[in-house]
Formats: sequence, structure tokens, C-alpha cells
Amino acid sequence: MKSISRRNFVNKLGVGLGSAAVLNALPSFIVPPDEALPYEGKKLNIAVCGLGIYGNLVAKALQTSQYCTLAGIVTGTPAKAKEWKAKYNIAEKNIYNYTNFDKILSNKDIDLVYVTLPNSMHKEFTIRAAKAGKHVITEKPMATSVEDCKEMIKACSDAGVQLAVGYRLHYEPHNMEIKRLGQDKVFGPVRLVEASFAYKTYDTSKINETIDFNDHGKWRLNKELAGGGALMDLGIYCIQASRYVQGLEPVAVTAQFGPVNNPKRFEQVEETISWQMEFPGGAIANCTTSYGYFIDRVYASADSGTFELSPAMSYGPLKGKTSKGELDLPIVNHQQAQLDGIGSVILANKKLPAHITGEEGLKDMNIITAIYEAARTGKRVVL
Amino acid sequence: MKSISRRNFVNKLGVGLGSAAVLNALPSFIVPPDEALPYEGKKLNIAVCGLGIYGNLVAKALQTSQYCTLAGIVTGTPAKAKEWKAKYNIAEKNIYNYTNFDKILSNKDIDLVYVTLPNSMHKEFTIRAAKAGKHVITEKPMATSVEDCKEMIKACSDAGVQLAVGYRLHYEPHNMEIKRLGQDKVFGPVRLVEASFAYKTYDTSKINETIDFNDHGKWRLNKELAGGGALMDLGIYCIQASRYVQGLEPVAVTAQFGPVNNPKRFEQVEETISWQMEFPGGAIANCTTSYGYFIDRVYASADSGTFELSPAMSYGPLKGKTSKGELDLPIVNHQQAQLDGIGSVILANKKLPAHITGEEGLKDMNIITAIYEAARTGKRVVL
Repeated sequence: MKSISRRNFVNKLGVGLGSAAVLNALPSFIVPPDEALPYEGKKLNIAVCGLGIYGNLVAKALQTSQYCTLAGIVTGTPAKAKEWKAKYNIAEKNIYNYTNFDKILSNKDIDLVYVTLPNSMHKEFTIRAAKAGKHVITEKPMATSVEDCKEMIKACSDAGVQLAVGYRLHYEPHNMEIKRLGQDKVFGPVRLVEASFAYKTYDTSKINETIDFNDHGKWRLNKELAGGGALMDLGIYCIQASRYVQGLEPVAVTAQFGPVNNPKRFEQVEETISWQMEFPGGAIANCTTSYGYFIDRVYASADSGTFELSPAMSYGPLKGKTSKGELDLPIVNHQQAQLDGIGSVILANKKLPAHITGEEGLKDMNIITAIYEAARTGKRVVL
Repeated sequence: MKSISRRNFVNKLGVGLGSAAVLNALPSFIVPPDEALPYEGKKLNIAVCGLGIYGNLVAKALQTSQYCTLAGIVTGTPAKAKEWKAKYNIAEKNIYNYTNFDKILSNKDIDLVYVTLPNSMHKEFTIRAAKAGKHVITEKPMATSVEDCKEMIKACSDAGVQLAVGYRLHYEPHNMEIKRLGQDKVFGPVRLVEASFAYKTYDTSKINETIDFNDHGKWRLNKELAGGGALMDLGIYCIQASRYVQGLEPVAVTAQFGPVNNPKRFEQVEETISWQMEFPGGAIANCTTSYGYFIDRVYASADSGTFELSPAMSYGPLKGKTSKGELDLPIVNHQQAQLDGIGSVILANKKLPAHITGEEGLKDMNIITAIYEAARTGKRVVL
């Protein structure tokens, strides 16, 4: 097996970063940085829409991004507007609330709106941003229904803007390496994927309290806002990994809701769900996601070997190995790598790669919908 | 976390083995070797019944066993009788075929019969051995039906002999450590177990050939002899691990037959099967077993940490880690550790521990039966 060592990997990208273990400025996978760039010195101006936990992470990554900058904000909370304005030195004219947001149409200082609002609000703000002529990145899950995804894709297409979904792991070296190992059949065809991602969101020793164990965003427990539970938030990563490790789409799913250990907390959305996906050619994927404990791994068994990441899908540092040995890959800031990847493509007036666009988000939403149906009915659902 | 280091582990058992990495003579978990043994110098005389691959492994382990010795054989193949007689210096009077086997009743030189025949033959030879007054170890799965397990237990009970099932991993330090970590709730209660064990039994690039990729025992493809496919042979380890990691019995199962990549080879038994087990208190286990690829791991996520073995269930050397670091445990010969464990107990006229007896085999067979029913019907089966 020809594995990419950190050194090889860095050299391949043409970046002279020596032996630094942590590479915060790793360029995107999409536009090799040694290519002549028509946009030298220019940065994509981004407005972050929704100033919650993830909005803060995006803002932080934008401070060191090579191709993007934080130019504006959209928030329903005046106090947050004031705080961000001061913290990031944002021009007053680039600050919007949910009411006056559409005026962004006339603001030439904003190129792209990054929607980090609760899931069910992605649709509205993506469509409004598109109608205002702005490119859009929306966080995953792209929306809370297949229908909404389709409307968002159409709105962006009609407006001639690009629509990306926040699939940060497509800019993360470990995940792109297991994608390569699987899709290039380095160990032969993949037969089994085990992908599980769970996050402990409450103190499991106090199951009668509804207080958050950590500040994961209370809206995630609200069906109206989140669209669903752990599957929408975390399980989507397992669906993604199972798909990109193979480069295949599932043909059928079965699923089981897990136990509800904290019924007061999980009145509206699932705490735990397991599901199985069948792929063309016979491979299967077993996945579990939960808000009740920690687990973060992807494991793949192929004909002549195995490969795995653990941790695999959280913000890192990620770690992985194959049946031939440890992976030695750069540790990157996921949000920055993603922003640089998307930014450089849009600045170059190129089309975003299909695997991070709205069409990709729609594929996942189709699968999520099938998984919920399978869990609800106890039946195998053909896709 | 208080992990058992190799040194601690060895000291705990009172064996001065220094820093040797491979301990072939590690005594059983059941009778501490520093206890005064009433049987000093005596060995349990064992007859191996069924001289296939596993019979050979048992015979080899018996050569170095502290408490057991290879005294006799039972075989339907005269050539094998001749070969084993010469190789292991077995007395002619201790050699039986399937017809004259019952005469073992009058043979005081045989204490125990170790049945390593194909699965569906375990019942007949266990019952005949019991009626001849011999203790029995039968390989797993104990039989091919719940009814057969019950008959075997009754026959041994009626005859006043002990019945063990070949659960070698109950004598294996890594597996006993994850049992301890789970049952003692070292990381809090276990919420999720992922246990998968698969073995590549044919050349997957030549799916139209039925020739064995490796000599795994062709009888395993015969429904009549094996009772089932990968679940009977390998999946049982995943059921075991899911149970002993928690010290709990599953309350319901769902299951899915996997794809048949080699229909000619798997005409009678399943190539791949996945199943999910629900446990009291809310934990779940996701398992897959297959004859089509390699996978060998147990992973458990508990409230405050994780622990895993990989490889976990094959003959070793096994390897494991927890969220706090690598496990450092002795590497043992599984068959020898098991034989010494069982031998020392029987020599001491003590009762075998419940978790390796026929009752344990019956529990697994109940679960296996439910898994097949769930896979066949597509329905959740309550245990």
C-alpha cells in the first residue's frame, strides 16, 4: 500500500511546511495552491447568518482564512450584533437582522452568506440570500425535509449563485484519505463500514434534569427547529462517511430507534438511532448515533485489509490507521480548510465540486428520511 | 482508571514470569495457582472427539497443558486414528470410532471427552459421552437448536457429569479485562457495543468458484452439519462479547441477512448477517459477522469513556485500548488457558463457573434462534 505520509502529503500539495505537526493553513484539496491564481490577494467577503456556537467557530476560522474574510453578520439578537461588531470590527452597514436581511441585495461588500442557523431556518435564509444574489454555504443538515432541499437548490440555481453545504470533512485529510483508500480500492472493494458518531449532551447520571451537560444548543431538542435528533446533527456524518468511503449510494436501509434514557429531555427528537445501509455490490454499513454518550469512529473492512479513523468526525485532532499501519496526515482546522477550499473556487469563478453542493445535501436528506421511515415502521425502506 | 498492567496481572495470579511477553502457561482465572491444590501432579485425561482443524488445535494445546493431557481420540477416519496414534503416542485401547465409542464407559483412563465435531454432531456425542460417565467439553455453538441444548444439559445432569462449552475467551486476559471494565462500570454504564467478527473463507475475486480460500472446514457450508452460517461459527463471539461486557441478557433483537456475494458457495447457509440487540437499561449492541471478509473487533462506549479490542476474538495476539490508553496484558494460548482452567476445576472436584457451561450455551442458542427469526421475518423479536 502506498500511504500518504505527512511529508508526502505536504509535498504533494506543494507547501513547504517542514515538519510542523499542526498545519493550520493547509490549502484546499480543490485548487492546488501552486496553480496560478487569478484572484491573488483578493478575499471572499462572508456574512455569517446565525451567531450561535457554530457561527462563532466559523468567525474564528475566518480570522486566519487565506481566501475568505468575515465582512458581515445577520442576527436576530441586537446584543450579539453589538458584541460581534466590536470584537470583529464589522462595518455597521454590513450588520443585518432577520427583518432587513433582504437589503443585503444592494450590498456589494458581501459575496457569500454562511447560514449557521438552526436546521429548519436554513431554507428561508438560503433562499433569501440567493434572491439577494449572494452565494450560500448552509450548515448540515441542509434542511429538515427533501422538499425544502429541492426548493433551496432551485432558488440558488434560478439566482445563478452557488450553494454549498457545510461538509467540512471533505476538506479534512484523514477523511479524504479513507475516501481514497475506499474508492481507489487500495485494499480491494469495501465490504463493511461501521460508522458511529455520538455526543454526550447531558449528565447521564441525572436523567431527570433537562439542563444541558454542555452548551450544545438547546434548539437541537426542538423538533420544529432541528427537524430530528441525533441523526440530523451527528448521524449525517456516518451517512456521509459510508458514502464517500465507497463512492456509492445506498439502495436500502433498515433502522431502529434506540432507548430514551432521558424522556424529559428527548420528548420531541430521538436520543439514539441505529441504522443499516445496503450498497450496490453488496457492502453494508452499520451506524449508530446518539446524544447520550461519546463515540466517534469510522471503520471499513475491505477484501485485503481494513482502515479506520478514531476520532473520525469531530473537530480533531483526528487519528487513523490501516491494517498496514498508522496514518500520518496533517492536522488541520476543519472550518478554515473548508472556507479556504470553497473560497478559492468561488474566487476563481469555478464550479464547486458536486460532493459539497446542495445536490449532495439532498442525497443525505433522502437517506435521513428513509432511515426515519424505517425506524418508525420497522420495515426495510428501498431508496 | 485502575488498569491491570502485565506485571500487575501476573503478580495478581502469583506467577513469577518476569517480563516475558508471551506467557504460554498462564494459569486459569478460576483457581488461583497459589491455592493448595488437592490434585498436585495429577492431570485430567482427555479424549478428543473429532480430529479436524479444531481437534488439532486442542491436541496441540494439550501437549503443554498443566492440568490436562491427551489420552484418547474418537474418529470416524481410520487413517486419522493411525496418524494421531503415532504422533501423540496414544494407547490403542484409548482409540474409538463412532460405532464403538460407547465402550468408553469402561475406560478409566478417560475423564473427559472434548467434542470438536461439526455443530450438529455435538448433541449425539455429548449425550453418549455423558451416558458413559465422562465429563464433556463441546465446542461452540453448543448445538444447532435450543431443543438439542436442553437435551444435552439434561443428559449431563442425569449422568452427574459436568458440561462445558468451548468458550475459550473466558480464559483470555484481554476479553476478561473488557468484561471487568464493563461489568465493574469503570467508565460508567456501557451504552453501545459494536462487535463484529468476520473471516474471509474464499477468494472473493473468484466468486464463481466454490473452492475454499483457506481450509476452514467445508462442513460449515452444509446446513445439516453447521446449523447455519457465519452467525453460528463467528457471530456467537459477538453475542458473547456483547453479553459479558455488560453482564446483561438482551431483551430483543433485530437482524438483516447481508448480501450473498458468492451464491454458489452459500447455497445453504448465510454468508453475512447483521443484528442489533437491546439490553435492559437501554444499551444496544450492533454486530455483523461474515464469511466474506476479515473483521475482528469489540468496541464499547460507556458514560465516561470507551474501550476496545482489535483483534478481539481470533487466536491472537490480541490487542486493546481504553480512552485512557493501551491495554498491557499477557498474550496466552487460548486453548491451553481454557483447558487448564477447566481441568483444574474438575480435578479439584469443583463446579465449573456458570459462564462456560451448557446453560450458557443454551442462552446463546436462544439468541441465535431469535436473530435468525428476526432476519427471516424482518421483525423485532422479543427474547
